Amino acid sequence: MRIFRFFPLLAVSLLPAPLLTNTASAAPTAVAEPLAKTAAISRIDPTFWWVGMKNPKLQLLVHGPGIGSSTVTLNYAGVTLDGVQKLESPNYLLVNLTVSPAAKPGKLALQFQGAKKVKYEYELRARNTDPARVQGVTSADFVYLLMPDRFANGDPKNDIIKSTNVSRIARDSMYARHGGDLKGIEQHFDYLKELGVTAIWPTPVVENNQPKASYHGYALTDYYTVDPRYGTNAEYIGFVKNAHAKGLKVIHDVVLNHMGSQNYLFKDQPAKDWFHQWPGYTRSNFRDAAFNDPYAATQDRKLFGEGWFDKHMPDLNQTNPLVATYLIQNFLWWVENTGLDGYRIDTYSYSDRSFLMQWGAAILEEYPKIGMFGETWVQGTAQQAYFAQNIFPEVQGFKSNLPGVTDFQMYYAINETLTKDAGWTEGISKLYYTLQADWMYQDPMRNVLFLDNHDLSRFYSVIGEDFQKYKMGLAWLLTSRGIPQLYYGTEVLMKNFTDPDGKVREDFPGGWPGDKKNLFVAAGRNPQEQEAFRYVSTLATYRKSHPVLHSGKLMQFIPDGGVYTYFRYNDQGEAVMVMMNSNKDEKTVDTARFAERMAGFSSGQEVTSGAPIADLKTLKIPGRTAWVVELKR
Amino acid sequence: MRIFRFFPLLAVSLLPAPLLTNTASAAPTAVAEPLAKTAAISRIDPTFWWVGMKNPKLQLLVHGPGIGSSTVTLNYAGVTLDGVQKLESPNYLLVNLTVSPAAKPGKLALQFQGAKKVKYEYELRARNTDPARVQGVTSADFVYLLMPDRFANGDPKNDIIKSTNVSRIARDSMYARHGGDLKGIEQHFDYLKELGVTAIWPTPVVENNQPKASYHGYALTDYYTVDPRYGTNAEYIGFVKNAHAKGLKVIHDVVLNHMGSQNYLFKDQPAKDWFHQWPGYTRSNFRDAAFNDPYAATQDRKLFGEGWFDKHMPDLNQTNPLVATYLIQNFLWWVENTGLDGYRIDTYSYSDRSFLMQWGAAILEEYPKIGMFGETWVQGTAQQAYFAQNIFPEVQGFKSNLPGVTDFQMYYAINETLTKDAGWTEGISKLYYTLQADWMYQDPMRNVLFLDNHDLSRFYSVIGEDFQKYKMGLAWLLTSRGIPQLYYGTEVLMKNFTDPDGKVREDFPGGWPGDKKNLFVAAGRNPQEQEAFRYVSTLATYRKSHPVLHSGKLMQFIPDGGVYTYFRYNDQGEAVMVMMNSNKDEKTVDTARFAERMAGFSSGQEVTSGAPIADLKTLKIPGRTAWVVELKR
Repeated sequence: MRIFRFFPLLAVSLLPAPLLTNTASAAPTAVAEPLAKTAAISRIDPTFWWVGMKNPKLQLLVHGPGIGSSTVTLNYAGVTLDGVQKLESPNYLLVNLTVSPAAKPGKLALQFQGAKKVKYEYELRARNTDPARVQGVTSADFVYLLMPDRFANGDPKNDIIKSTNVSRIARDSMYARHGGDLKGIEQHFDYLKELGVTAIWPTPVVENNQPKASYHGYALTDYYTVDPRYGTNAEYIGFVKNAHAKGLKVIHDVVLNHMGSQNYLFKDQPAKDWFHQWPGYTRSNFRDAAFNDPYAATQDRKLFGEGWFDKHMPDLNQTNPLVATYLIQNFLWWVENTGLDGYRIDTYSYSDRSFLMQWGAAILEEYPKIGMFGETWVQGTAQQAYFAQNIFPEVQGFKSNLPGVTDFQMYYAINETLTKDAGWTEGISKLYYTLQADWMYQDPMRNVLFLDNHDLSRFYSVIGEDFQKYKMGLAWLLTSRGIPQLYYGTEVLMKNFTDPDGKVREDFPGGWPGDKKNLFVAAGRNPQEQEAFRYVSTLATYRKSHPVLHSGKLMQFIPDGGVYTYFRYNDQGEAVMVMMNSNKDEKTVDTARFAERMAGFSSGQEVTSGAPIADLKTLKIPGRTAWVVELKR
Repeated sequence: MRIFRFFPLLAVSLLPAPLLTNTASAAPTAVAEPLAKTAAISRIDPTFWWVGMKNPKLQLLVHGPGIGSSTVTLNYAGVTLDGVQKLESPNYLLVNLTVSPAAKPGKLALQFQGAKKVKYEYELRARNTDPARVQGVTSADFVYLLMPDRFANGDPKNDIIKSTNVSRIARDSMYARHGGDLKGIEQHFDYLKELGVTAIWPTPVVENNQPKASYHGYALTDYYTVDPRYGTNAEYIGFVKNAHAKGLKVIHDVVLNHMGSQNYLFKDQPAKDWFHQWPGYTRSNFRDAAFNDPYAATQDRKLFGEGWFDKHMPDLNQTNPLVATYLIQNFLWWVENTGLDGYRIDTYSYSDRSFLMQWGAAILEEYPKIGMFGETWVQGTAQQAYFAQNIFPEVQGFKSNLPGVTDFQMYYAINETLTKDAGWTEGISKLYYTLQADWMYQDPMRNVLFLDNHDLSRFYSVIGEDFQKYKMGLAWLLTSRGIPQLYYGTEVLMKNFTDPDGKVREDFPGGWPGDKKNLFVAAGRNPQEQEAFRYVSTLATYRKSHPVLHSGKLMQFIPDGGVYTYFRYNDQGEAVMVMMNSNKDEKTVDTARFAERMAGFSSGQEVTSGAPIADLKTLKIPGRTAWVVELKR
């Protein structure tokens, strides 16, 4: 997540409202969950729960005016009340329960006795055992990252929701909402299938009821509600189900580090120590390096972890065990409620380290198959590996249990490959060196590769709209190790730079009724766009049916004269050779040095063009070209 | 060591001579050791040994025409003959002994019975217990790296040694011998003391009897003999002793990976498997990365480790336990024989990993105090840390026991600091990030910092002869963590680039009788040179008497606007602030963010200028300036 360069300075007041007002954070009208509301209780989080979770403990955060002074009773077979806990704000009460596996699903009547007597029927559900749920995300996948507000508008009825703090859409502004939604994505499942995609990663779909720049999704204002501009909770559950039916997985983008300033938890803070408080607005220094720097100043470390990511994003104090429990339960809730397949964790490195370990362990314990990768926009493979499961011992109190990361180091490397001439360490050599550093990961195949994302200048612009380089990048993305991720529109050459105007988040042409250009269909694309789409879909489709490209072993050869060659291969005798010539000019390559991988193969076929290669001994590879060659006996 | 760009291609034949001829590799006339030679035995390595070494085993490599078919007997109280071993060449015999601590020093009569009967008196000495020997090298030191051939010619009599393969000196050629020697260095001990130096690191002083480019010392032709152009073995022992008497330590530069092609061991190879043999000359690929690359091709890994460093440098097969023993004994021999204080290990990463572990363990077991740092001209801190004692588990069969390394990553960082503008990660930020990565070392204070060395373009040239930058570099060198190392002449602004003509190894002006310029004395220096010398000596002398700068803790603050600030401090309340402004223009720095380290201090004094700083609250630091400020209460 990169906010600081994407937003005009906001003048939002950060003073919490003295009491919760219902206007902003009440559950939007679209929420389908059967909450038994009363006047005195505005909500209970988690909004409902399940019988039979591995951890039988459940901590309810009850919110309502003056509820804190209540006593609580309940009488439900298999559920015990372990106690209640007051917080600084009189409007909260924590209720600690143990839900035995023997308890039956049903409505649990909670009796609150304070100034008034209030009864709240809390729902305990049966778990959903559908095996299609929570499939995980692996290197067999091809992930499509999109911004729901900017991809396609499938339901114009939810463009403007009156109860929210934004009452308009404005497609000409990069900071406004544009109207895209879950329905819009669903309507293009077939498009994604055609492209060879197997998993969809929308930027956060959870409510962002901020008055400004709320479209990006990283300022959560209600942890339990899908943003009504995208759809209802029920529609999101349907979205995941329909995706699964189509053979598509869903990755849910989560934010642990901060929330939106319009979140009811911030406006009426349960206690001051739920947030990192500062005398005035104090921004993070954005230097994760301070955390494990053996020479770090205390102040630099504190600023990194406790400074706010942005003015409208209060920083959560996850060292508070109540906050930790709130977050852990929320993210178990989303998995159980929707059947989502993986979590992408925003600003992973910014969170409290002990909390990260605890959060990761809790999620993995309940859902061992779930995919998880964290955003690690850091410098150097060692630092990146530090945030993933790695070979290091505990360092500065942290031993990550995160299976994978968004691989910024590989992103830097492919970038340099395509923008700088090859040298001993420069240009394409950086790709070699970066991959070499994989010895630090427990399993680098779980890392997510990308050419661009919503925070970065678009790939096609970065490479100077050079179509040869474009193909090289895509060939690498879909054949190197790990989980390839494409940013929406890159397959049809969408362009632009992050600076100065954030136009890397433009609408996908054709996603809105009446769009003049429609790149979702071949007929709407110009020949270059069509060739780009064809190139990606050809490779992705080939990859999908050739496990050697995702689960096969990898062998790389030291780049020689700007030509870099690697192989994906397996014990069944399959092998794909990828040869990248980063030079402007053609190179003649004697393949004798690749004998270790080429022995036994006599010919090949370039996958993206279908061109046969009759003689493998000497290859004349044109300048700025990547060949993906299936080797044949 | 960087040879490949420094030498014209050599046409030396690599065919080993069928038999040892005495012309090249016989011990030079200058050797002072009392070897009891016979016609049939040309030498025994080690040339002598000691009673009371921790490891009582001793393996003698006996060399002489046809000696391999001999039987051996001995009769010496406390010494047992464990056996003999033939090698492929009939001219070698290995004799395995156990020397009990109870044995008395003396002459051990070895009886060889073959075609002829030969007696060889092998000397067992008493160990030297002088506590001034083997002092180790620590961050309290300031190391001066010089090339003995190029520093000063103290003894013109040894300029040309008739028995060697080079019969001339030619000061106008960078590839010829110039005549410098140990005596020349000794004559300038006072100069080094004046500069604040505490340890001398000459490039290898051991015999390099190659016909071409033999001056650099990295192609050893006799493991047991000082190169006669530098002095005798006895003179080298005296050199170390005299250095110690002056308060200077001596670092011995060693090569484990390869030898010179004129070495008797290569010309008459004990066995083929003492060397990495190739059908034709096969160069290393110089990519240490291949070794621990999880995706490396076998061939790339083999080429790295077994390819030759240069045409005239046969690569040793250290996986052969006989070779390993030969090398280990040799390097124990040098310590015990001379009392040297530390080893710098050339091309450290090229050697066999198991051997490196074995070698390091053997040296450290016998001499726990010895300083050891290896050349690690590698990419990235993780890779560099991999070659040092680190926090990693064993990776690809290797767990280094090397205390320190030549810190190329810090060299890259200071280079970038002084040649590129500051950015988020660029310029001076790289210094911050590189130091941050120290979490991977067991003890980064044992790493050697440098601005240049004999393989690199000279510092003053690299920074465009900008004197402001010069002072910044030196200030950093002498105040950051680890062991600072200066390359000879940098203190008087010696210049030049490695390419195209290797002029970074020019003679120190004044080192030769009749030199027009003499930079050893103040009167010979121009004002700029004098100011450079004064700057270095002032800082080095200050450092020497202020342990806070070598053993003190370090705290660095995240660079801000191109200004980078760090502190050396200790529990005794001493503190030195180093502030580096990498911008062209003056910067005003509010020091409030450094409160953690500045609290309690009210003023300061800039060490290099002596200028008082009355108010520490706001500092106006000129562009391209480093301040070294002693904080005062």
